[in-house]
Amino acid sequence: MGQAAGLPPFMLLDPMLRDWLAEDLGRGDRATQALLSFGSASDSVGSDWVTGVFRLKQPGVVAGLPLAARVFALLDDQVVFSPRVQEGETCEAQTVIAEIQGSMAAILMGERVALNLLMRLSGVATLTHCYVLRLAGFSTQLADTRKTTPGLRVLEKYATRLGGGCNHRFGLDDAVMLKDNHIVAAGGIGAAIACARQSMPFPLALEVETETLAQVQECLEYPVDIIMLDNMPLDILKAAVKLIRERRPTTKIEASGNITLDTLGSVAETGVDYISTSAPITQAPWLDISLRLT
Amino acid sequence: MGQAAGLPPFMLLDPMLRDWLAEDLGRGDRATQALLSFGSASDSVGSDWVTGVFRLKQPGVVAGLPLAARVFALLDDQVVFSPRVQEGETCEAQTVIAEIQGSMAAILMGERVALNLLMRLSGVATLTHCYVLRLAGFSTQLADTRKTTPGLRVLEKYATRLGGGCNHRFGLDDAVMLKDNHIVAAGGIGAAIACARQSMPFPLALEVETETLAQVQECLEYPVDIIMLDNMPLDILKAAVKLIRERRPTTKIEASGNITLDTLGSVAETGVDYISTSAPITQAPWLDISLRLT
Amino acid sequence: MGQAAGLPPFMLLDPMLRDWLAEDLGRGDRATQALLSFGSASDSVGSDWVTGVFRLKQPGVVAGLPLAARVFALLDDQVVFSPRVQEGETCEAQTVIAEIQGSMAAILMGERVALNLLMRLSGVATLTHCYVLRLAGFSTQLADTRKTTPGLRVLEKYATRLGGGCNHRFGLDDAVMLKDNHIVAAGGIGAAIACARQSMPFPLALEVETETLAQVQECLEYPVDIIMLDNMPLDILKAAVKLIRERRPTTKIEASGNITLDTLGSVAETGVDYISTSAPITQAPWLDISLRLT
Amino acid sequence: MGQAAGLPPFMLLDPMLRDWLAEDLGRGDRATQALLSFGSASDSVGSDWVTGVFRLKQPGVVAGLPLAARVFALLDDQVVFSPRVQEGETCEAQTVIAEIQGSMAAILMGERVALNLLMRLSGVATLTHCYVLRLAGFSTQLADTRKTTPGLRVLEKYATRLGGGCNHRFGLDDAVMLKDNHIVAAGGIGAAIACARQSMPFPLALEVETETLAQVQECLEYPVDIIMLDNMPLDILKAAVKLIRERRPTTKIEASGNITLDTLGSVAETGVDYISTSAPITQAPWLDISLRLT
Amino acid sequence: MGQAAGLPPFMLLDPMLRDWLAEDLGRGDRATQALLSFGSASDSVGSDWVTGVFRLKQPGVVAGLPLAARVFALLDDQVVFSPRVQEGETCEAQTVIAEIQGSMAAILMGERVALNLLMRLSGVATLTHCYVLRLAGFSTQLADTRKTTPGLRVLEKYATRLGGGCNHRFGLDDAVMLKDNHIVAAGGIGAAIACARQSMPFPLALEVETETLAQVQECLEYPVDIIMLDNMPLDILKAAVKLIRERRPTTKIEASGNITLDTLGSVAETGVDYISTSAPITQAPWLDISLRLT
Amino acid sequence: MGQAAGLPPFMLLDPMLRDWLAEDLGRGDRATQALLSFGSASDSVGSDWVTGVFRLKQPGVVAGLPLAARVFALLDDQVVFSPRVQEGETCEAQTVIAEIQGSMAAILMGERVALNLLMRLSGVATLTHCYVLRLAGFSTQLADTRKTTPGLRVLEKYATRLGGGCNHRFGLDDAVMLKDNHIVAAGGIGAAIACARQSMPFPLALEVETETLAQVQECLEYPVDIIMLDNMPLDILKAAVKLIRERRPTTKIEASGNITLDTLGSVAETGVDYISTSAPITQAPWLDISLRLT
Repeated sequence: MGQAAGLPPFMLLDPMLRDWLAEDLGRGDRATQALLSFGSASDSVGSDWVTGVFRLKQPGVVAGLPLAARVFALLDDQVVFSPRVQEGETCEAQTVIAEIQGSMAAILMGERVALNLLMRLSGVATLTHCYVLRLAGFSTQLADTRKTTPGLRVLEKYATRLGGGCNHRFGLDDAVMLKDNHIVAAGGIGAAIACARQSMPFPLALEVETETLAQVQECLEYPVDIIMLDNMPLDILKAAVKLIRERRPTTKIEASGNITLDTLGSVAETGVDYISTSAPITQAPWLDISLRLT
Repeated sequence: MGQAAGLPPFMLLDPMLRDWLAEDLGRGDRATQALLSFGSASDSVGSDWVTGVFRLKQPGVVAGLPLAARVFALLDDQVVFSPRVQEGETCEAQTVIAEIQGSMAAILMGERVALNLLMRLSGVATLTHCYVLRLAGFSTQLADTRKTTPGLRVLEKYATRLGGGCNHRFGLDDAVMLKDNHIVAAGGIGAAIACARQSMPFPLALEVETETLAQVQECLEYPVDIIMLDNMPLDILKAAVKLIRERRPTTKIEASGNITLDTLGSVAETGVDYISTSAPITQAPWLDISLRLT
Repeated sequence: MGQAAGLPPFMLLDPMLRDWLAEDLGRGDRATQALLSFGSASDSVGSDWVTGVFRLKQPGVVAGLPLAARVFALLDDQVVFSPRVQEGETCEAQTVIAEIQGSMAAILMGERVALNLLMRLSGVATLTHCYVLRLAGFSTQLADTRKTTPGLRVLEKYATRLGGGCNHRFGLDDAVMLKDNHIVAAGGIGAAIACARQSMPFPLALEVETETLAQVQECLEYPVDIIMLDNMPLDILKAAVKLIRERRPTTKIEASGNITLDTLGSVAETGVDYISTSAPITQAPWLDISLRLT
Repeated sequence: MGQAAGLPPFMLLDPMLRDWLAEDLGRGDRATQALLSFGSASDSVGSDWVTGVFRLKQPGVVAGLPLAARVFALLDDQVVFSPRVQEGETCEAQTVIAEIQGSMAAILMGERVALNLLMRLSGVATLTHCYVLRLAGFSTQLADTRKTTPGLRVLEKYATRLGGGCNHRFGLDDAVMLKDNHIVAAGGIGAAIACARQSMPFPLALEVETETLAQVQECLEYPVDIIMLDNMPLDILKAAVKLIRERRPTTKIEASGNITLDTLGSVAETGVDYISTSAPITQAPWLDISLRLT
Repeated sequence: MGQAAGLPPFMLLDPMLRDWLAEDLGRGDRATQALLSFGSASDSVGSDWVTGVFRLKQPGVVAGLPLAARVFALLDDQVVFSPRVQEGETCEAQTVIAEIQGSMAAILMGERVALNLLMRLSGVATLTHCYVLRLAGFSTQLADTRKTTPGLRVLEKYATRLGGGCNHRFGLDDAVMLKDNHIVAAGGIGAAIACARQSMPFPLALEVETETLAQVQECLEYPVDIIMLDNMPLDILKAAVKLIRERRPTTKIEASGNITLDTLGSVAETGVDYISTSAPITQAPWLDISLRLT
Repeated sequence: MGQAAGLPPFMLLDPMLRDWLAEDLGRGDRATQALLSFGSASDSVGSDWVTGVFRLKQPGVVAGLPLAARVFALLDDQVVFSPRVQEGETCEAQTVIAEIQGSMAAILMGERVALNLLMRLSGVATLTHCYVLRLAGFSTQLADTRKTTPGLRVLEKYATRLGGGCNHRFGLDDAVMLKDNHIVAAGGIGAAIACARQSMPFPLALEVETETLAQVQECLEYPVDIIMLDNMPLDILKAAVKLIRERRPTTKIEASGNITLDTLGSVAETGVDYISTSAPITQAPWLDISLRLT
């Protein structure tokens, strides 16, 4: 298996997974090494075959199954990891989400990293899903931000999609967002846009952050792909959306700033295309998942 | 500066910090590159000097200041990052925790990674601190677990200490914990201990996980450094502590399993030395912190 | 210096520059090591200070000066590399483009890598500039492709900009281009677009490759950001541009396929926004540049 | 397959190939991820099997087939890449040089890197072959230089051999070439040679660069393995060869400097053993090769 | 095979083994590449199958067989490496310790690294075994130190265990040893212990280095896990052991400093738990082992 | 300082030095972190300045001073390491070879790695020097082999030179040595040589291993750069040297196999150019060196 749906090819993910295993293993699993060297005349880790069950302890959206599978495969390609639910599926507490068979050594060495990934990503997918449910019936989409755990951005944004959200840019290179400081530095919004357009790859989108109607209006003088309406009161937000739709109907509109589960619906009612919020990633508790060997 | 108090030397941390910057930068910050190539005849990033303020938006324990400083230093060693509070200090909302001066390019490129680290680690330190406050007056200490975000273990455990907790082992190599599966595999608790002692470095501690009084009793036949009492009801817990103190007064006792803020006190009352729980790390929301350039 | 205008920060470039120095050094420069250990009682490489001059042997556009400077700095931060022309400047043959001072050891060890970069990148910038000159008077811009030397994409695309061209996407992740195979796999152009929109980050552009007017027409049923007209005869090209401008005036139009210096003008006359061609990168001879020590 | 003829083992090449794939993939192929997650309930990339044909669009010498095969194998070991010509074979335009079968995802993700390698290396082999043909009938061999694309030296020098040339040294460590600056630094040619011999590994060759007959004569006082005659007019070159053959018949003679296709023959007539020139690498246009999926 | 008994999983060892192969291969094995490209029309390294025998030239303890097997597997997974003795077995001179079959290319490329590992590790295991034999009949165990060859610590400590010794800590992080300088810096032994306990993970052992009886006595005021008696004359050593056993019967006692084969027995007679010495690692000559191809 | 005499530039050595520090530090020096976080209100490691003295405990040749200096510099560039003897100097026991000043933290963290390098390399230089002294008065030089500690080849070969020896090839790529198996594989010595010459870089030396006079004789039919006489009895050795000198006076002659301190002189008397032996590297005990802080 070279790639799982929705994920980069494992060639790109393996170095991270190996680093995370190494973080937990340090100079090696003393317990496993001890039991192996003690228990048998065999040099093989396969001598002690066990099976186990991954079980959800809370209801939620399951995320990370292909990564858990890969964690064990990197330690020992004889391990068989069998998902019992779909990746991204919403499951009840106590659901068996996967079964595993393999050498006890490989399973005990990979257990913690696999569970940490499953629990963290399922936590993000589950909280995202809560937010997305509040947008049912609206055409507005929930988007994430660049507030992601260092080192986990690709995976947390993948969990966002599994939870029903859509992704904003992945980094400073795949879209240009002009903020206040850029605009001041360039000497005005028109100058900043002109300067950005001049050097950025032509397919990239250019987004401008605005906080007032006046800024929105100025923005509309120029061909901007996305206008972000940051921290605006609801009535201003509505007025801004109206203004933009009239003047630049193909421009995408993003609302941002202090979004909560409670305010999601009223912001969506303004007709913005996207509501971006970091909460489903930064506020998500891990979803509890256990592995029992049998 | 080669090392900050309580942290490994930067020689060990820099590769991670660089990876995290690279994750955000991708092929480079298009906006910064554009404004730089547009705005001036100079090749230098120093031409556009700005200052900024890091401000807490919620009350909490601040963690990660030396890391934030280093993030900017890796991009441009001319940046001056000046903490305004102590690392680990409990602060009110709106506290200015640090000031920064430097080229706009370096500050905008490092901003997101620095904030993500500060917010995540301060979140962990803050929640840990809540737990630790419940143990005031007890000799029991709060300990963390190996449930940590992949790639962040050293830093999240550092935040645990800043919040007043103590660290359990950092990985599978710096203490041996014998669980049920090990014991079954070795053919009994005595055999498992003998086999572990035979191959593990002699200074390492050996811990055994127990779930019943009978297991505790069996355990006491052997020289075990730490006995973990897992998921025991309070009365069993008390009995186990009594048993151990009588037979093996120097053995450390750790309680674990389903610990909540509400149950902490009653578990501590049993007299265990350590209560270990993953909650301060796995349930911690990020602490909100902003950077405003001026 | 943390970053040069138009380039990613050196934190991202240094690993490549170090790899390239290591490629040339292997296990070390035997000649330098020999002369150093022979010539003096000093352990220092600074004992033998020399100066040198980088000179263009052919007319062309100079590209790579900040990289050459960095190559020497990585070997010895005492080396002073002083550009004598602007990065991206068009110069006559025999122009002195930079001067250098430093230890002979550092200069001889960095010489080949620095020159190879300067010669390759200046070659690309120079040929790009030839193409761009043919587009003078048109609003059409010259764009590059993903046909770049493995490992040099960021730098060759930087040279493209120095030569006056603009960049197409940098990789498979910063814009989505749907080709015939994608469309067949998804079961039609509409399905392919829907499916791509569903999982790609919302700011990314979606481009569709077309080879016939019928395909262009089908494309116009959907919100596509960029339409590529591939290998079309001039009259078809004109018709396609007309069609698109009428139906989707904000859609960007890119012409591609078998572009030569001779056909550039007539393709530009059709009014397309971009002409993309790999030739300025794949057909560029290196520009001859010498370093003489004095 | 651990190694292909004439190439280092893949263990050494794989890190480069992975870097080059990562350069193109960035954070993942958005189109492939989208189509995979949309089209099917399966997690496997193998669900969409395609076949394709690599075809030469120009006549030339084919180079890079084992590398192209490896590129796809690194993404997905189920891909079958079947060369249809010999590596190094001279082929007509339109020749099918290889066929491929595998998942569409793996083929589309590897396509660009595989083609870029094939086109660049075949370009070098083809131009080298042109030069080598001019030396038919002479005992003189064509040699390359250290003017190679940063990061590609081993592969471009491999392409040189496929085109019929021979390799000069691969870096600063596998032969010692004393240039003017070394000689001045050591205080004369004899001192420089003595000092180099003293610290270099004894099997390495020592080469001295000369520009005048006087320098050649001085050189002949010492045991030099290779004498380079740099930029000499033809009559001086002839005189130098005669001088060396008389005094040091086992010394190898290399001519260098401003070699063109037109001057190759007359230089070879002087009887030198090697003519070294960077042109087949620095002036080679890429050979056009296409991949069509069917 | 994911792991061999007593060793970390190969996932952790492979990067080191690859580095060591790369150190020997440099830019590739010229001889192998030459013979491969000459001898046959095949691209495969499997065309030239050979077999070979690893033979001990001196009596000793064999260590490193799983590592030698892995070295060849990394080059070519078709190579079959078959141990003929147990890892850690004491063998006579001329014993065939392993046989190998595979392509000549892979075997010749891996030969030197495999032999260097086998010879070095067997040398360490053999000398350790000599030391351990002197402790027969005593309960004292032989321990190693942190004086290990840079880069080989995990493997040399593994060889120590194969020779019958036990391991002291693996690094500065898996036990805390307080030395004179720490104690002075903290302002006394009690302060140093308190400060260490406060920040170190609670399962880690704390060891204090003492050189006099007075220091031992002071040490006994505090809960120290291990007391090291450094460089003490035999009578002082005996007195120190008596003192410790009386006051702190569960404290481990380690003797260290100027241990030789001759003094081992008399030190053991004092009743210390561990004698630590670097000699079996720093003084071990390599054990001679040959590989003959047949 | 970018490079020390006789060593590759630090740019190449730093990754190894960092790996070796990381091997010892693991997740950080617990003792240093504890004392730092306890002792002072300052975040700086510079608060506790100490000085120390490196002292030889045995007579020998000192090797590794620039590496020891670099180890500390990588941890903290404020550390001042001052050599008190020349690198490569032969010193008496008790000689102070270097002094150091800096923060206690940096010195304690770098101490072990610096000492391990100094002790190992000085051990090699010292034993090499013993061998070289036996060759006084002969023109024969002592050469090393590829039997070096994995990962330390460049440094152990550097120590060889400091001890007065000369280096044989550094790896499989910087000279070609044809052994029996190569010759059989190619179908004879002539075929093997022809085939090697055809693909190897032309400046590289070609060496052939011989074990009998007949093989030497066959060898002389071809232009071989170095002939190795392996394991020959003294009279055969003498005959072989005579044969070679007559027929191929510029061919270098290397004797190898079972060389001991006692036989060195008699082998040298045969007039061979080089005697190669692994003993000074594989049999060298570490030279004892201490660091005392004051």
